[in-house]
Amino acid sequence: MDNRTEISSLGEFGLIEHLTKNFETQNASTIVSVGDDAAVIDHFGKQTVITTDLLLEGVHFDMMYTPLKHLGYKSVVVNLSDLYAMNATPTQITVSIGISSRFSLEALDEFYEGVHFACEKYGVDLIGGDTSAAQKGFVISVTAIGEVAPDKYVKRSTAGNGDLICVSGDLGGAFLGLTLLEREKKIWLENPNIQPDLEGETYITGRLLKPEARKDIIEFFETNGITPTAMMDVSDGLSSDLLHICKQSNLGCRVYEEKIPISNESRQAAFKFSLDPTACALNGGEDYELLFIIKQEDYDKLTLNEEISVIGYMTAIEEGSKLLTRGGNTFDIIAQGWNAFG
Amino acid sequence: MDNRTEISSLGEFGLIEHLTKNFETQNASTIVSVGDDAAVIDHFGKQTVITTDLLLEGVHFDMMYTPLKHLGYKSVVVNLSDLYAMNATPTQITVSIGISSRFSLEALDEFYEGVHFACEKYGVDLIGGDTSAAQKGFVISVTAIGEVAPDKYVKRSTAGNGDLICVSGDLGGAFLGLTLLEREKKIWLENPNIQPDLEGETYITGRLLKPEARKDIIEFFETNGITPTAMMDVSDGLSSDLLHICKQSNLGCRVYEEKIPISNESRQAAFKFSLDPTACALNGGEDYELLFIIKQEDYDKLTLNEEISVIGYMTAIEEGSKLLTRGGNTFDIIAQGWNAFG
Repeated sequence: MDNRTEISSLGEFGLIEHLTKNFETQNASTIVSVGDDAAVIDHFGKQTVITTDLLLEGVHFDMMYTPLKHLGYKSVVVNLSDLYAMNATPTQITVSIGISSRFSLEALDEFYEGVHFACEKYGVDLIGGDTSAAQKGFVISVTAIGEVAPDKYVKRSTAGNGDLICVSGDLGGAFLGLTLLEREKKIWLENPNIQPDLEGETYITGRLLKPEARKDIIEFFETNGITPTAMMDVSDGLSSDLLHICKQSNLGCRVYEEKIPISNESRQAAFKFSLDPTACALNGGEDYELLFIIKQEDYDKLTLNEEISVIGYMTAIEEGSKLLTRGGNTFDIIAQGWNAFG
Repeated sequence: MDNRTEISSLGEFGLIEHLTKNFETQNASTIVSVGDDAAVIDHFGKQTVITTDLLLEGVHFDMMYTPLKHLGYKSVVVNLSDLYAMNATPTQITVSIGISSRFSLEALDEFYEGVHFACEKYGVDLIGGDTSAAQKGFVISVTAIGEVAPDKYVKRSTAGNGDLICVSGDLGGAFLGLTLLEREKKIWLENPNIQPDLEGETYITGRLLKPEARKDIIEFFETNGITPTAMMDVSDGLSSDLLHICKQSNLGCRVYEEKIPISNESRQAAFKFSLDPTACALNGGEDYELLFIIKQEDYDKLTLNEEISVIGYMTAIEEGSKLLTRGGNTFDIIAQGWNAFG
């Protein structure tokens, strides 16, 4: 960056005007946007779906290896992922930020470039938020709003016994990206002359730093007349998230290790770090894939989509929640996902 | 407090269950609440109104003199105030918090007691949020959701020339409460043996620490068939907020100093601190009163409500934004309100 403009030089209202000037409204449901006490939305008979996520520097992201543009993008995407996980279509977001004087206006512009890019890609409108000075660090709070036809939303608690367990994309990549970046950070802190060795690892670092939400899967459901019986997004790790569906649906499950989708890049990275790729997929979080349950009769429709893997099925609760390994062993699935209070 | 339970001992999901177990749904519009990827709302033909506010320790509140229960209450109320300022009825909130390990579960319980109390008093449902560890301090992000009959919302930009400027309650109290508490804090820091002298100041400290949102005014409008032509809440100070209405409505204004409502308690506190009460009312923020503009023909209806003061009228933009003092002088109104980036 060549220039440094102090954020305080604009004042709060000047800052909001500056940050939001390039955002154009894309949805007819956005009636009143940025600039009033509140925004007004009309979903015209559809139901409104709402989710919110807080991202804190030092807990959810490390400024040492997180580009601000990616951070803005990811802050939006992780919220949209929650809306897709309800089978809803995102329509609006609010973005609130608290920033210390360590950050310049140019830094904030980069963050909002990422927000803008996500808004354009996913067709959502930025309709409000709050900007404030913070004593320390960078605080991000995003609320995402979407719509769904009445009673078409999909909860976690409604899976049926014998239903198939499916997952989109592949798992474990974000965790391996984090492992790599944390290792390189440690090496760099010990010896700042050693440049980070990230060559050939753009897939796993990209999974962590710039995830996508699975809009395509929700559209595929719509086109092919599939309504999952339960769904959530994989943010805490497959084990932890699948156990939520089991608990809330009062069921057990069987998962086949060999069916869990893991990319070649993730597999290679796992071997490099002497980690078990399956453990990374089960316990690593932040992949933002969709974990969903469908009726057996919908199985044939899934073969149209290479992005979907069937990894097991739901059972009665008495049968427990089990992983069947390649070697023929059976283990209890336990929640070892990421925990912000760990 | 007798006990100290570490928040980490519950885990994130245990914590959410613990904090939300006493919250009961009060609105038919709340279809899916806490516990899924997102919440689902159906406003049944009404429009949805959304606002969000970020409250950061050390910037928006000082834990040294802010009881946690009041903080929880205020975090909700300041958001509801924004919805009332759109002429909307609040229906749901989400509450996200980031907390350092300095805070115990018991402390968090006190905060949520305040949230719960506000939810009950204003008839809103807690439908979601996010809880996270923070490296330092206490981060609060609240989003409030409300409903309004189609096109009954009131913006800032639609005041008319000649319309009357009105304000609810009284102004300046919260600023004087802050002045008092900051003074007592300074004295205490210099000499911890001197106990704070807050006797007789419960009105102004209450205005700061436990403000109310003007639900009653919106209900009065409804009952008496009044629709303001423009409205906002007084959060940054009367000057700053009235100038927003002027700017967005492309108008000027005349305000009479003698008509600005100031309580006796505030007036006395101002004299004690050698401050001009009018300056406190014009520039002090956080009163969360409603500033609204009505047509002259609605004037007679207002006399029914002692909580409403008519303080001036809107003019053509060429006539500027002026304050007419008791002494017969005329001053330009300038924005000197509170600025988080100051």
